[in-house]
Amino acid sequence: MTAMNTSFFGELLQSIAERGRSLIERKRERRPAGEARTATFVELCEALLSGRGEASGVALAREILASYSKLKTGERIAFFEALAESFGPDRARLALACAAYGSAPSDEAANEVLQAAEPRRQELIRRINLAPGATGELVQMRGHLLDALARRNDLAPVDRDFVHLLGSWFNRGFLVLKRIDWSMPAIVLEKIIRYEAVHEIRSWDDLRARIDPPDRRCYAFFHPALVDEPLIFVEVALTRGIPDAIAPILKADRAPLDPKEATTATFYSISNCQRGLGGVTFGNFLIKQVVEEISREFPKLSTFVTLSPVTGFRDWLNRERRSESPTALQPSDAHALSHLDDPDWFKHAEKVAEAKPVLSALAAHFFLIARSRTGRPIDPVARFHLGNGARLERINPMADLSARALERAYGLMVNYRYVPDDIEKNHEAFADAGEVVASSQVKKLLRTDAKQTALVPAP
Amino acid sequence: MTAMNTSFFGELLQSIAERGRSLIERKRERRPAGEARTATFVELCEALLSGRGEASGVALAREILASYSKLKTGERIAFFEALAESFGPDRARLALACAAYGSAPSDEAANEVLQAAEPRRQELIRRINLAPGATGELVQMRGHLLDALARRNDLAPVDRDFVHLLGSWFNRGFLVLKRIDWSMPAIVLEKIIRYEAVHEIRSWDDLRARIDPPDRRCYAFFHPALVDEPLIFVEVALTRGIPDAIAPILKADRAPLDPKEATTATFYSISNCQRGLGGVTFGNFLIKQVVEEISREFPKLSTFVTLSPVTGFRDWLNRERRSESPTALQPSDAHALSHLDDPDWFKHAEKVAEAKPVLSALAAHFFLIARSRTGRPIDPVARFHLGNGARLERINPMADLSARALERAYGLMVNYRYVPDDIEKNHEAFADAGEVVASSQVKKLLRTDAKQTALVPAP
Amino acid sequence: MTAMNTSFFGELLQSIAERGRSLIERKRERRPAGEARTATFVELCEALLSGRGEASGVALAREILASYSKLKTGERIAFFEALAESFGPDRARLALACAAYGSAPSDEAANEVLQAAEPRRQELIRRINLAPGATGELVQMRGHLLDALARRNDLAPVDRDFVHLLGSWFNRGFLVLKRIDWSMPAIVLEKIIRYEAVHEIRSWDDLRARIDPPDRRCYAFFHPALVDEPLIFVEVALTRGIPDAIAPILKADRAPLDPKEATTATFYSISNCQRGLGGVTFGNFLIKQVVEEISREFPKLSTFVTLSPVTGFRDWLNRERRSESPTALQPSDAHALSHLDDPDWFKHAEKVAEAKPVLSALAAHFFLIARSRTGRPIDPVARFHLGNGARLERINPMADLSARALERAYGLMVNYRYVPDDIEKNHEAFADAGEVVASSQVKKLLRTDAKQTALVPAP
Amino acid sequence: MTAMNTSFFGELLQSIAERGRSLIERKRERRPAGEARTATFVELCEALLSGRGEASGVALAREILASYSKLKTGERIAFFEALAESFGPDRARLALACAAYGSAPSDEAANEVLQAAEPRRQELIRRINLAPGATGELVQMRGHLLDALARRNDLAPVDRDFVHLLGSWFNRGFLVLKRIDWSMPAIVLEKIIRYEAVHEIRSWDDLRARIDPPDRRCYAFFHPALVDEPLIFVEVALTRGIPDAIAPILKADRAPLDPKEATTATFYSISNCQRGLGGVTFGNFLIKQVVEEISREFPKLSTFVTLSPVTGFRDWLNRERRSESPTALQPSDAHALSHLDDPDWFKHAEKVAEAKPVLSALAAHFFLIARSRTGRPIDPVARFHLGNGARLERINPMADLSARALERAYGLMVNYRYVPDDIEKNHEAFADAGEVVASSQVKKLLRTDAKQTALVPAP
Repeated sequence: MTAMNTSFFGELLQSIAERGRSLIERKRERRPAGEARTATFVELCEALLSGRGEASGVALAREILASYSKLKTGERIAFFEALAESFGPDRARLALACAAYGSAPSDEAANEVLQAAEPRRQELIRRINLAPGATGELVQMRGHLLDALARRNDLAPVDRDFVHLLGSWFNRGFLVLKRIDWSMPAIVLEKIIRYEAVHEIRSWDDLRARIDPPDRRCYAFFHPALVDEPLIFVEVALTRGIPDAIAPILKADRAPLDPKEATTATFYSISNCQRGLGGVTFGNFLIKQVVEEISREFPKLSTFVTLSPVTGFRDWLNRERRSESPTALQPSDAHALSHLDDPDWFKHAEKVAEAKPVLSALAAHFFLIARSRTGRPIDPVARFHLGNGARLERINPMADLSARALERAYGLMVNYRYVPDDIEKNHEAFADAGEVVASSQVKKLLRTDAKQTALVPAP
Repeated sequence: MTAMNTSFFGELLQSIAERGRSLIERKRERRPAGEARTATFVELCEALLSGRGEASGVALAREILASYSKLKTGERIAFFEALAESFGPDRARLALACAAYGSAPSDEAANEVLQAAEPRRQELIRRINLAPGATGELVQMRGHLLDALARRNDLAPVDRDFVHLLGSWFNRGFLVLKRIDWSMPAIVLEKIIRYEAVHEIRSWDDLRARIDPPDRRCYAFFHPALVDEPLIFVEVALTRGIPDAIAPILKADRAPLDPKEATTATFYSISNCQRGLGGVTFGNFLIKQVVEEISREFPKLSTFVTLSPVTGFRDWLNRERRSESPTALQPSDAHALSHLDDPDWFKHAEKVAEAKPVLSALAAHFFLIARSRTGRPIDPVARFHLGNGARLERINPMADLSARALERAYGLMVNYRYVPDDIEKNHEAFADAGEVVASSQVKKLLRTDAKQTALVPAP
Repeated sequence: MTAMNTSFFGELLQSIAERGRSLIERKRERRPAGEARTATFVELCEALLSGRGEASGVALAREILASYSKLKTGERIAFFEALAESFGPDRARLALACAAYGSAPSDEAANEVLQAAEPRRQELIRRINLAPGATGELVQMRGHLLDALARRNDLAPVDRDFVHLLGSWFNRGFLVLKRIDWSMPAIVLEKIIRYEAVHEIRSWDDLRARIDPPDRRCYAFFHPALVDEPLIFVEVALTRGIPDAIAPILKADRAPLDPKEATTATFYSISNCQRGLGGVTFGNFLIKQVVEEISREFPKLSTFVTLSPVTGFRDWLNRERRSESPTALQPSDAHALSHLDDPDWFKHAEKVAEAKPVLSALAAHFFLIARSRTGRPIDPVARFHLGNGARLERINPMADLSARALERAYGLMVNYRYVPDDIEKNHEAFADAGEVVASSQVKKLLRTDAKQTALVPAP
Repeated sequence: MTAMNTSFFGELLQSIAERGRSLIERKRERRPAGEARTATFVELCEALLSGRGEASGVALAREILASYSKLKTGERIAFFEALAESFGPDRARLALACAAYGSAPSDEAANEVLQAAEPRRQELIRRINLAPGATGELVQMRGHLLDALARRNDLAPVDRDFVHLLGSWFNRGFLVLKRIDWSMPAIVLEKIIRYEAVHEIRSWDDLRARIDPPDRRCYAFFHPALVDEPLIFVEVALTRGIPDAIAPILKADRAPLDPKEATTATFYSISNCQRGLGGVTFGNFLIKQVVEEISREFPKLSTFVTLSPVTGFRDWLNRERRSESPTALQPSDAHALSHLDDPDWFKHAEKVAEAKPVLSALAAHFFLIARSRTGRPIDPVARFHLGNGARLERINPMADLSARALERAYGLMVNYRYVPDDIEKNHEAFADAGEVVASSQVKKLLRTDAKQTALVPAP
């Protein structure tokens, strides 16, 4: 045997490649290039699932990922199609297993059903994850799948399997919370800039103003298999009292507060970083762990709130205004609301003065009474925090005068508040009865007639 | 609200506890203490699976693990029983799903079968893993389950679910290879001492002799969620030629070889560290990655072999000797084998001289021809390496004169050799046809008649 | 005794403060505030040098640094004056020691002279360095001293002692070379932006273009006592051939070179970071160690050069042009040089074409023949690299068209080249004989008459 | 130029070597081998101090250290002699400088004296420290020098320069305090075992019992230039009350104390690790910083004491017993002291009962009144802690029954106590007036007549 001067896996791979070539090349000849590429790729996947995968799993998984990275959009979709069609459950086996269970249910029969029902692509994806660095690439693959899914409903079963496996791998127990501050590597910080989805970070100076002053905190979850890649992060301002507007928080040249004088931790931005992890939730864990982290550092902080954007309010209000039988609007609102038709309404003090109380009252209606067709609050941010056990603490008109916030909610923002003692109770009220738990100051904003409606929670 | 001067989760937990107490305590009163403890515990598990788990998952998971850690053996078994009985699949739903699939198979119907067939304990274990540090405690829990399983076959379905989830979490892609050397923390090194299962490490000096000299290497896999806990490790000696005995490798005061002069890396010990991960395989990955690692450091190394113990040879040989129609023994072997009945046979040069060739020939038979009732090689170490793509390279009589090795195999050891080009081919030969790939020098040891048998591989 | 719930050093300090207060306060009453502050401060220094310093050294050193940080400019100068006047050598003891040595020279007598001659401020500065973090603050103090020194020549002896001690503490053996890349903490990277003194880094994107591409390297020296503080750094471009202009290197959107194809490492910027370490040299060590580092990474690189700015050429040339008996100018140069009086000359191809050869010839004269009043090359950058053992490799007219480079050298840059075999020889030629070692292509640029002059090196 | 495929410094070194060879080899021929080796070595040192050192300093320094490491004992001494003779101050220059200062003292003249008086070996040692790793090797070199110094008083001036430079480099400001616990690398821990000089650590289990239990702490100082090399360490037991014997602290199978219940931190062992740093003090800093560290971790601890061995007591007592006019002994002591002549006296309860009070009284005399010829307390440990600002808290007879402690002090140990408020006062009392500050319980042990003597402190 000659000296082994290339890498072990290198040789192994070459050996695999040579053994497979004749078979694969013969098939390849008969097809156009793109199709051939996908086809070869599918053959590699079959090999990985077969006995060869047991001997050469890591090498095959590397090869698959290397091949995948060269696929173009169309070829990727062809691959997802193949996953949907050829790597589903073994239907014959499943039919038998179902029949067997039907005639004689038992643990063993149930297990056989379980094994037969599991799509083969689950094991395939698990084996691809053998390769070093594979987890990150599978997350990207899932991002591509999400893109395709928008127009290809038939790929939903494939997505289900990705979500199942990613959910298991990105289990809360594996996530590591890290504080993001100015001593973090630039390679991480640039991702914070890029991924901030709520209040854009415009520059490195802007970033520094968010993470470096003593009254600011930023935390992110990381996964050990995705080095230097934050999964989700939250930005926190330590404040005196509950803030009612975003501008003072984002102001560039403000004087920082001595954190010892703060009473409140305000979560003013939470952003997901990995498109491919959409649907795998860790936002709720992040908030709760950051609350714990900050409580440990500043034991005197008494209040934990968000300052959150509102989504869907403007659309809902416009529908109300256009409706012949509005549920929330009163005739007397018309004048105040007419100001909103002036694109610059928010710059005129008197228009603002008239619009504010009406917007507040209608926002209370929007959150407490209005419901989507599925019977849930319209605003997804509300659904997230309420489902998470927070309560609606305060409605803040004129809180965000950015174009986007005006566009979405006439500048309205709200605070959700996390009170440890109430989290579980709030969550159950929302999950079981659809009840939106709100502070008395929010409830008071409701008009009398609406209040009565609100007493009967949606079923 | 008063100042929050205890931890967030602390309060959350207290709140959960208070909310659950009345219900739980009422039930508890009617039962004896141990039973009550398990029962409470099961109720916590139900809570974690319920909507409450969504709001207070981390706190509940912590509570469950804290409760579990206080259970005694009997209580643990009661808990595993509960997992088996009360946390299996939803049988009614599964029956319906099977019927539906039977009448109209489809992706959706298959998915409903899959969801229904998944035992509820899988999701339970996933949610317990929400707690920080949970993964390590779940591995321990699985260790306890394995203990119980020895006498409680009915717990096998529970074990299946543990293995499924641990297999996913301890995916090769998440494992981190680290070199174990003298700069490692003592807290890790003491575990190497404790877990070495093949050739006992008797002291810290002994450990140092294994990991510190320039011609020795030790590598272990770690998982990010199990800090300071090696999962499996392998000890390697860099040697000139393939070693035929263990004593020169373990000798305390030997002069180390300049690793540049080594031709061979000998894997002489591989030990699993976590009982709770039994059945979750990473040994094959470890060997291959260490081969790659060492190849990178010493590109001139040409040979990668093991020096492995042999298990079951003595038992097999004794059965042969007692048998009226032995398959491998020849009448002429009797004299040489009679020496083995002297407990000190290995100390007498002339007895050794007579026994050696007979032992070698019979060992060749033991590996190449003898099979267990399931038709596989008798020695589990052989099954591991052959299934892994290695070949049987050499049989070394008198290679290990320790009491254990004499007891198991009359002092015999063997080398398995990993040749990158042949790994996949060897694996397939073994997996598909049950063929034991061996070097010509091993094959030559077979007696003529046995060789003919060996030509026809077991079906 | 009551519980010790404040820090040990806290109490110690309080105790020191109380013991010292009566004395100090009495003195303080009689003086104006600023003077009193400096005076108190000097008293603390005396205490640190006294027996009290032995018991409470760390606490006193902390106090001194805390007091220093509150001084204003005038007060600082007063403090430096005190160091100059009151913390010099013990003159009486020194006079005795000198007399004793004069009458009977011996090792012991010499040592007594050495002890007596050492200014007391040396021991004072050593003791201030007892406090955690003191080294960095002493470097800053030296920076302030340099500022004062500009107009206060009498402080030079104080500076000498700072340089002596800092030189010992910032010994090459303690410096740690680190590669500066995009995975460095932002807190370090922002200092690279701030301290770059040769080719300004305008933004974080600009920084990234300097350190992140595969054909760029940046290295800095750090000292263990100055965390996150680079001392000096060098920026390197891997290039094909020796570059003759800076713009292609700094270009934002250039396509990076595959470093395997590079032949040359070009050091195009070297910047000191700590004003307070002025005069403590590590630039030469940095270049040589980076050459070694890069050679290890890319063994095929054959050429190590700088692309350096030229300082003083324009001033010298202007003096030549104004001079009635110029040493380098010839009448025929007048026309070409007259173009330079047009501020936009460098934008006109024909003017450039005429000026270039004349500038090159005169630059050769400037480097090879012209000398300062102390008989050394006029350009300090040249003195640095030549003294360091490099040779003058090439003169590049029109190499840097930035305002600063035009202002200093009509856009001229040069390459110095480091050839390992020649470094010591070159250094000795320069140090012993003042000879400027240059490549033949540089020498050829000299006009015939100048060449003769050049044959006779300056004494 | 050919490709540069070896290291830069490698070539540089080769070039230096070649340039120097002819000269050096010519000289070498005429001398015997050992002498030649030292001579070559001295020449390298001269080269490093010369201009060549400026260009090739790092390479030369490496070469010098490599050469030194090959010297044998005799050759090393020859090298130290050369340092003493040939690398002292420039005597002619010094004579001139002294004369100049004598006739016209000035800052400049004083500085010239200082420069001239500095032995050339100081700069040499500084330049050797240019090489990577040099600091550790210079510490070892100083260790060799100390060995030689035992019999070679003429090397004292060389040692003085080593101490001066090492004192500057091992400045408190550069030292890093680290907790030594079970998560430390074995390579560090084995040095703790090896260097423990007070109460031997017999095994790794013994080490673990010292550093791992919750009521034990161990801290060491490290220097950034000496990786994995502790300089000095201290072992601390958290105890309830001030311990009066060592055995309960070192007991292997004791039940650890919950550190929250501890009142006292007892420093029971402090050991220097680097022979070459003898005379460079950091013990006092270590104790004070560890007190601060522990105070931060356990704010309720109120008492910081040592449990220290006593040195010289037995010798002193024997001198007293042999003396015709003892200063401390009374005739009535004779009977009790006669027990001590039985080697097994400490095993007999009644002998112990009689000896104890006499030993205590005489120990009080030993510490409070007896003095060495230089007028200081006889016990060096006492001098260390008293000079450090501690007070003598308690005398503990029968505190250590190990052979060594019986040999040195008839089993006596003492507690020194560090009270933050008193440290400076105590230090000054001891340093200025030679007063041994002691607790009232220690003073009470003195006999009446001795007390009177004690009132008049030694001058």
